[in-house]
Amino acid sequence: MYMEHLQQSFNVQYNFNVFFTAALFSVENDLFSNFLAGLNPAKAVKKIFFVVDEGVANAHPDLSQNIKNYFSKYNQTQLVQDILVIPGGEIVKNETQYFDKVLEAVNTFGIDRHSFIAAIGGGALLDMVGYAANVSHRGIKHIRIPTTVLSQNDSGVGVKNGINYFNKKNFLGTFSPPAAVFNDEQFLKTLSDRDWRSGIAEAIKVALIKDREFFEWLEANADAMANRNIEAMNYQIWKCAKLHMEHIRSGDPFESGSARPLDFGHWSAHKLEYLTNFEVRHGEAVAMGIALDTIYSQLSGRISSDDSQRVIKLIQALGFELTHPLLQVTAGNSPILQGLEEFREHLGGELTITLLTGIGSGEEVHEMDTELLKQAAEILNHQANLQFN
Amino acid sequence: MYMEHLQQSFNVQYNFNVFFTAALFSVENDLFSNFLAGLNPAKAVKKIFFVVDEGVANAHPDLSQNIKNYFSKYNQTQLVQDILVIPGGEIVKNETQYFDKVLEAVNTFGIDRHSFIAAIGGGALLDMVGYAANVSHRGIKHIRIPTTVLSQNDSGVGVKNGINYFNKKNFLGTFSPPAAVFNDEQFLKTLSDRDWRSGIAEAIKVALIKDREFFEWLEANADAMANRNIEAMNYQIWKCAKLHMEHIRSGDPFESGSARPLDFGHWSAHKLEYLTNFEVRHGEAVAMGIALDTIYSQLSGRISSDDSQRVIKLIQALGFELTHPLLQVTAGNSPILQGLEEFREHLGGELTITLLTGIGSGEEVHEMDTELLKQAAEILNHQANLQFN
Repeated sequence: MYMEHLQQSFNVQYNFNVFFTAALFSVENDLFSNFLAGLNPAKAVKKIFFVVDEGVANAHPDLSQNIKNYFSKYNQTQLVQDILVIPGGEIVKNETQYFDKVLEAVNTFGIDRHSFIAAIGGGALLDMVGYAANVSHRGIKHIRIPTTVLSQNDSGVGVKNGINYFNKKNFLGTFSPPAAVFNDEQFLKTLSDRDWRSGIAEAIKVALIKDREFFEWLEANADAMANRNIEAMNYQIWKCAKLHMEHIRSGDPFESGSARPLDFGHWSAHKLEYLTNFEVRHGEAVAMGIALDTIYSQLSGRISSDDSQRVIKLIQALGFELTHPLLQVTAGNSPILQGLEEFREHLGGELTITLLTGIGSGEEVHEMDTELLKQAAEILNHQANLQFN
Repeated sequence: MYMEHLQQSFNVQYNFNVFFTAALFSVENDLFSNFLAGLNPAKAVKKIFFVVDEGVANAHPDLSQNIKNYFSKYNQTQLVQDILVIPGGEIVKNETQYFDKVLEAVNTFGIDRHSFIAAIGGGALLDMVGYAANVSHRGIKHIRIPTTVLSQNDSGVGVKNGINYFNKKNFLGTFSPPAAVFNDEQFLKTLSDRDWRSGIAEAIKVALIKDREFFEWLEANADAMANRNIEAMNYQIWKCAKLHMEHIRSGDPFESGSARPLDFGHWSAHKLEYLTNFEVRHGEAVAMGIALDTIYSQLSGRISSDDSQRVIKLIQALGFELTHPLLQVTAGNSPILQGLEEFREHLGGELTITLLTGIGSGEEVHEMDTELLKQAAEILNHQANLQFN
């Protein structure tokens, strides 16, 4: 018996917008309402369910009431009056009870595939809610309203969702774009200095591998950002989000291959976050990871010492630490070398690391030299100490 | 402050093949091995992990050993020696312990995104394993090896995965194509008569809404199929799979809209399966659902009584029952009318039902008349009784 095999081939187009605004739920601001109304005018009754980061709810005590007032005025979409407030941060990805709460709400409130789940919070909360929305009814539309610099300029505008499981970061997850992203500058104003600063690390990263001009802009505006200038911060977020989105579009959006240039500086950062039980924030760890891979790029002859010092200077000007004791390569089984091995496993066999060949350009390598890594860590340790002596 | 919004737009192409073969894991059959070798030759070590339906394992006691022998010969891909054997049928979608077992295996055996999870079994098992693979590491490639007529000609070649949750069918799930499908006729030969017959209902369905010529082929070959002729069955599967795949490709693969023409005859079938606790098999329920919506199409003036009787005759020639007491519309809150309402909710507000306008063509309607539905059910009840009197 021979029957010709059947070939299946189809394209799926994904579209979404990232909007920039202030006071998203002010009743004078019709941006959100216009977005909801502009979607295909199905006869279906559309509902919208909100999940809010507890930290954001505390910093913005009127938020829930503002949302209710907003949907009293713009009532084409039916607001689920129960707004779910849960903690932000890695805990919402680590403990499945929060994921379950979103599923329960989908069930209890009859949120269907024409309806929306909107998440207001930092990147971790957005990741978890996006994942819960993606798998409910094979995909309820989700709207991201990121409230931190890190989520507004990076993770919030991307296509990844997930939770941690078996103690492994993003063990469960999906690639799936949001219906829309709304970046509201009001949320930035109440951030702590650490959270305000932390996300800028992703801008340094993307500038270093893709856009020398943006790197120079960051150098020129580092002091303004460190002094909480909102215009400078807004431009940084807009430009960084744009570069991330262009990368996703031009590359391999759902990461079928191994190359992950946007992970520049991240291999050691992931490990450091875990080792410090997330005491070191993602952006802080990324700043240290960038410093490490920049010095490594210099020691391996890819960039000049002048260029690498410009990077170090920018990281310091923004108020980041340069390194951490756990990033040192010591005798025996250094955690940092374990982290390199885990990153290799995570990619599926072949290590792929991006290094710098200049400010604004990178290249992929498939191994790192332990001795050079040790030297790079020591140099940073020395520079960090100089700062304080 | 005004910043231009950022627009994201990208395409993702999905490709996969459905292969037809006999004795897939015979060491002389290099089809499976060639497929694995033909994928992008990354340097990554690829593993393959198998999940097998207990009923299939019992009917094919050499299967596990054959798989081991196969990968001893074709060893470019590393077989995970622990083959997971779990029950088939709706239980694997109802009880999350089976989903968890697949996740645990991914973790324990280090199955990464370059590796494969292959599922051998009926549609329910394939749905569950596909879902577990999709969400593990944001998507491990999954291979479907459907073993029933229903899964070889319909669900196994599609893009839907899922499990039941909160007692709701496919409450959790994803749209995601497999890496490949392998239809092996060997598995059909050990099916019970009920399972052999059941899946043919999907062929009647797709012929009725899309392909008059195929309907005529089914009429001409009904007796051969009822008598377990494998050549006839193979052609039926190939043609039915082809029509399903063409529909997915040409339409809305991930179902962003409400229209679901492939659900012809399914709204009442879903309800009947649940009401009988899956005692009535999916294909059996679909055959009854087709009969009901066909008579309804006639009573509402869309098709002739001659055409509707051809459909009824084909359903009977294949050995299906025409109806079930629970499909009758009675006074008060008939389960069948509840099922219609639940289907409306499932679609998200607007009911969309496909009815026949001829043999080989359908149209969508957005309401059904209770009185006509009652008459249609009574006519079928009468015809079913005639058969036995």
